[in-house]
Amino acid sequence: MQWVKLVGLGVGAAALLGLGIILGHFAIPKVAEQSASSTSGPQDLDREILETVMAQLDAGRIRENLLELSKEPHLATTPRDEDLVQLLLQRWKDPVSGLDTARTVEYEVLLSLPSSEQPNLVEVVGSNGSVQQSYLPKEEEVTGEQEGPDVVQPYAAYAPPGTPQGLLVYANHGTEDDFKYLQDQGINLQGTIALTRYGVAGRGAKAVNGARHGVVGVLVYTDPGDINDGHSLPNETFPYSWGLPPSGVERGSYTGYFGDPVTPYLPARPSSFRLDWNSTSGFLPIPAQPIGFQHAEDLLCNLKGPQAPASWQGALSCVYHLGPGFTGGKFPEDSQVKVSVHNRLVLRNSSNVLGFIRGAVEPDRYVVYGNHRDSWVHGAVDPSSGTAVLLEVSRVLGTLLKRGTWRPRRSIVLASWGAEEFGLIGSTEFTEEFFSKLQERTVAYINVDISVFANATLRGQGTPPVQNVIFSAAKEISSPGPSGLSIYDNWIRYNNRSSPVYGLIPSMGTLGAGSDYAPFIHFLGISSMDLAYTYDQSKTSARIYPTYHTAFDTFKYVEKFLDPDFSSHQAVARMAGSVLLRLSDSLFLPLKVSDYSETLRSFLQAAQQDLGALLVQHGISLGPLETAVENFEAAATDLGQRISDLQQDSPDSLKVRMVNDQLMLLERAFLNPRAFPEERYYSHVLWAPRTSSVTTFPGLANACSKASTTDLGSAEWAEVHRQLSIVVAALEGAAATLRPVDDL
Amino acid sequence: MQWVKLVGLGVGAAALLGLGIILGHFAIPKVAEQSASSTSGPQDLDREILETVMAQLDAGRIRENLLELSKEPHLATTPRDEDLVQLLLQRWKDPVSGLDTARTVEYEVLLSLPSSEQPNLVEVVGSNGSVQQSYLPKEEEVTGEQEGPDVVQPYAAYAPPGTPQGLLVYANHGTEDDFKYLQDQGINLQGTIALTRYGVAGRGAKAVNGARHGVVGVLVYTDPGDINDGHSLPNETFPYSWGLPPSGVERGSYTGYFGDPVTPYLPARPSSFRLDWNSTSGFLPIPAQPIGFQHAEDLLCNLKGPQAPASWQGALSCVYHLGPGFTGGKFPEDSQVKVSVHNRLVLRNSSNVLGFIRGAVEPDRYVVYGNHRDSWVHGAVDPSSGTAVLLEVSRVLGTLLKRGTWRPRRSIVLASWGAEEFGLIGSTEFTEEFFSKLQERTVAYINVDISVFANATLRGQGTPPVQNVIFSAAKEISSPGPSGLSIYDNWIRYNNRSSPVYGLIPSMGTLGAGSDYAPFIHFLGISSMDLAYTYDQSKTSARIYPTYHTAFDTFKYVEKFLDPDFSSHQAVARMAGSVLLRLSDSLFLPLKVSDYSETLRSFLQAAQQDLGALLVQHGISLGPLETAVENFEAAATDLGQRISDLQQDSPDSLKVRMVNDQLMLLERAFLNPRAFPEERYYSHVLWAPRTSSVTTFPGLANACSKASTTDLGSAEWAEVHRQLSIVVAALEGAAATLRPVDDL
Repeated sequence: MQWVKLVGLGVGAAALLGLGIILGHFAIPKVAEQSASSTSGPQDLDREILETVMAQLDAGRIRENLLELSKEPHLATTPRDEDLVQLLLQRWKDPVSGLDTARTVEYEVLLSLPSSEQPNLVEVVGSNGSVQQSYLPKEEEVTGEQEGPDVVQPYAAYAPPGTPQGLLVYANHGTEDDFKYLQDQGINLQGTIALTRYGVAGRGAKAVNGARHGVVGVLVYTDPGDINDGHSLPNETFPYSWGLPPSGVERGSYTGYFGDPVTPYLPARPSSFRLDWNSTSGFLPIPAQPIGFQHAEDLLCNLKGPQAPASWQGALSCVYHLGPGFTGGKFPEDSQVKVSVHNRLVLRNSSNVLGFIRGAVEPDRYVVYGNHRDSWVHGAVDPSSGTAVLLEVSRVLGTLLKRGTWRPRRSIVLASWGAEEFGLIGSTEFTEEFFSKLQERTVAYINVDISVFANATLRGQGTPPVQNVIFSAAKEISSPGPSGLSIYDNWIRYNNRSSPVYGLIPSMGTLGAGSDYAPFIHFLGISSMDLAYTYDQSKTSARIYPTYHTAFDTFKYVEKFLDPDFSSHQAVARMAGSVLLRLSDSLFLPLKVSDYSETLRSFLQAAQQDLGALLVQHGISLGPLETAVENFEAAATDLGQRISDLQQDSPDSLKVRMVNDQLMLLERAFLNPRAFPEERYYSHVLWAPRTSSVTTFPGLANACSKASTTDLGSAEWAEVHRQLSIVVAALEGAAATLRPVDDL
Repeated sequence: MQWVKLVGLGVGAAALLGLGIILGHFAIPKVAEQSASSTSGPQDLDREILETVMAQLDAGRIRENLLELSKEPHLATTPRDEDLVQLLLQRWKDPVSGLDTARTVEYEVLLSLPSSEQPNLVEVVGSNGSVQQSYLPKEEEVTGEQEGPDVVQPYAAYAPPGTPQGLLVYANHGTEDDFKYLQDQGINLQGTIALTRYGVAGRGAKAVNGARHGVVGVLVYTDPGDINDGHSLPNETFPYSWGLPPSGVERGSYTGYFGDPVTPYLPARPSSFRLDWNSTSGFLPIPAQPIGFQHAEDLLCNLKGPQAPASWQGALSCVYHLGPGFTGGKFPEDSQVKVSVHNRLVLRNSSNVLGFIRGAVEPDRYVVYGNHRDSWVHGAVDPSSGTAVLLEVSRVLGTLLKRGTWRPRRSIVLASWGAEEFGLIGSTEFTEEFFSKLQERTVAYINVDISVFANATLRGQGTPPVQNVIFSAAKEISSPGPSGLSIYDNWIRYNNRSSPVYGLIPSMGTLGAGSDYAPFIHFLGISSMDLAYTYDQSKTSARIYPTYHTAFDTFKYVEKFLDPDFSSHQAVARMAGSVLLRLSDSLFLPLKVSDYSETLRSFLQAAQQDLGALLVQHGISLGPLETAVENFEAAATDLGQRISDLQQDSPDSLKVRMVNDQLMLLERAFLNPRAFPEERYYSHVLWAPRTSSVTTFPGLANACSKASTTDLGSAEWAEVHRQLSIVVAALEGAAATLRPVDDL
């Protein structure tokens, strides 16, 4: 799983949550909770098959899968990654439990790897050039797996090579505001090395922001306050708890874009046009290197300069200071920090594995369910916990298929993506290669990357129309543990919101670009979702599970601390299986498009409250947007009614197909490839990245942000108006897609 | 009808023609001619309805329609244009012969009009400022219709206002090469007025090219050699022949783009964002004004300077010289020419009229048939000859519909577009407003603008898959006149080519941007066609019918010289009606996608022959393109076979729908909105404008043209590789769209 651009989604979800309360005038009458899933009536889904699948999804087999998948490190394109390609192929071609067909598709993609001869290094260097201290960012042996020959040493993928040296400063999360704060304190950042902590800003953003202020190299560490609830001693961390050991280092991709970095919008075939590696945008301007908190502590706790503000303090054993330079205690006062990065860019062959179950009635409608295969090290949690589930779902469905007892109405595509950790590369190349076919035919994309972060509750993320099918499934599956509650009822206890339509319901998250759903929703406009089990946020403030992207993310870690009986894995397998069956087997697609109305209303309300006055000053009216939202609501409600009416009859198959096409294609109507030309792949006018804090249509919000400091009549204000017109046209187009097809 | 970008299509068609001979290795076996229409078997089309419609389409009623439509000038958005909106609405809402529904959709669009107070003017001014001669570009009274109050005086729409003055030069067609030639003769173009003749370069291109060389104003006239087969005397022209009278002036739009100029990609709603009129691209940099050849003769025949080359000579009564300046005969030698242009940009409301016939079985599949309504003056030929046909087709279909004897399988949309003459504005705004819905559902677009240029033969233009349905219809309809031949057999006598697949067949033209099909094919990727009856090119070399865009394009002109018995109008009505019925009523769509293979082969061959060696020198291989063409061919042939097999069975309606969706969506797979970002609306990788003379994929051809003068490793050569990869990806994507849907 990528961590890029996940930041801000939590904020968005929280804002949506709050909107339940403030949307007082939102006039849709409240209805009973159950009706959130009313379009998937039991009459059009084979309950017996569903129950069989639920019963057969086996925790023990998921455990076996995980043991095999996480036995060795399997970084993208390494021999072990290729072994797993063969393992998946073999499973999906199995005569007893395999699929109809399976094959691999290979791309030649640009990866970034550390040098095997020259390890990346951080040194403290005295004024005479003498090395005072040398830190090798390497994880310590704990379970006999950390020092194996196939463990890739921690590095910042795609950070350029270089050996910058300078005085050290502490720059908190490395946001633009953080660097500004340092400057405001009179600290000269020119030529410095910035020590930053993971979180808030994306990985690459820390270096991009720093470079803008003159920083020449960036170190990134994980603060025990952000990941270990403050614990930092060896005996408080793995293998004694789920905590990150002091030597643990989060690896990760530091690019600005997803997809193969040098073949944007084109499949990375060997013959494809490639951007010049040396001048392509998206790569960092300066070297960067991640380190463990034991090394960070050594550096940070010896910094001189002003004390860092309270919000910048972490859980290391000292008060954090800003620098620049050291106190003169452990290191001479004029010592500098030298960061040696020897990463190389290499072209490598990366495979996707694709499996296919032919639909019995509508083979040209696809439900795609995928996860990536590649890990940073053993990747027991990320991504193998998801792949273990994927393999178990495919075994159960494959067995029914091969026995001849079942074939879904629509086709099912199962996918094991390559090179996700480097930037969602396999899935993105897939969407580029099969753009037309996928846009024409894909009903939905289901992603299960990390299936189990922890044992507390389901986490569901997706576009509004998939809430319905996730809720329907969650209501019928028992949550792991002794509570006896359904996954739905358990979820609502941990994470809920007050919906103006449904009342109190579980809170769904939105989709950023954290995993392989990104190209499906942002580039193709396909309704997408991500499913996982996760922790109780009241019990831990960990940013993510602590051993994320480290050599401690192993089978033993999962079995000991995350899910000893694999019941959460089983619960996620049941969720994925149930959602997959509902989408592929229901007569009417269980996508509830009217659930978009709530999002649109909340976006509109935020625009009115936070931007309305400013827009009026610049002669821009929100009136057309209000009308467009109303038109969408009316069309969506009316379509829901027509489907209900049809369900009372015995509609012919073409009539069903027609409304299903409207449901399937709604998400496409929100795409505008010309809306955000600088945001690679982002075409969805509702879910493009939002840099503004106003929780509204991203193009409008971002344009207003940029325009706010400019004069009346500026090009920036013209862009605000253009973005508003783009949203209005998209909403009106979406409403037109939902209206009865038999009139203009 | 627009004349923009029509240039070069003739060249393309001729090159295609020649390819019939050179494609020796093209291995598809020749088959009997009839099989060109094999996918539209008689079993799935109601022959009785078809014959009824053919019989009822009435020449007399078309004549009546034309009389009414062309009674008064009806420039876009004028009161008479609005009257015709009401006429169409009334016809389409008629209880006896109307459609299911009809409505208008209004846009607020930017037009350019001449000033009513200050007429545009051309003057010869002596060195002392005295006006030697003044020319009012106004047409003379000939039939009592030319001097009416509603006749808009000749002007160059969207040419900026201004009063440039300078020495006159003659610049032939105003191409870049023409201006270069003048410079090579040592003629200083700085500050000159250029007199150019219509043809070869687009209207606006003459001024754009001239301005690049320092020209400050452009005059454009129609040379009798290009339009009247050399005749120029009043008694040799209308009303004594079909020839253009000496005072006749071709009006036209001089913009660089089509669509409302200030709302690209957005429907021109009153609230829409608009580009700044004063800085928007696409408008001319200098004033321009069209004039009649009687005025042009006065100027041109008094020019001094070197004699113009033979290919620059026309049919006026003198040898053409280049200038600059006059001989001193009629005008003093130092006289200059002053062009006074007083055009204004104005926002006006323009309506489309839309009519709808609900499909009985697949109402969500649309066949759209349209033409524009607005004219420059009376517009009897352009566009009313097409609208007269549209109204007659709608009457016949509407009558069957209202009687309850017929309802098509798919829905039919009839459209009367507004403001086409200003740049296809009504149709473009329509495609912008309903982008998603139209892309999802539209089977094909049929355009009949000028229905009758003359009486000799059918002219069919379109994308390859529509050749099949046009040929099928043409084989069953009698050509006008006494020959007794079918339209097809008559056509083949006038304009044929040797197809490697079918042998000798009528030659179809390709689609530029000459009429309202442009946004459908280039922006939406919808299979499109244009139908008309036209002249015998062996009998006249007229660039177009001579009174095109003048006040002489009247009902009397049509009745006397173009189609006295309206039999050609009737033939076109039958063609449009037959094609419309076949597309909307056939069980299997009569689109033959394998006919694209011939185009792709010829494009590939041209790339190999004309660009291959150059590409190899720059390390770019055509291998992947060859493979992609082969893959497309195989997939298209195989789909054709599967359809044939299905036709033998009684396939269920979903199976039919699935292959029809593949046929419908093929054209969409050729779109790439990121391929040509500077070419507004052009997204189709096969039919974007081609500036190179190599008849191959336009992006590749144009990029090679630009790169040819640059060094190895230049950005221009990188763009060549990118364009090649874009085409390969599009063809592979198109092949994937055609392959069986029930595998990956």
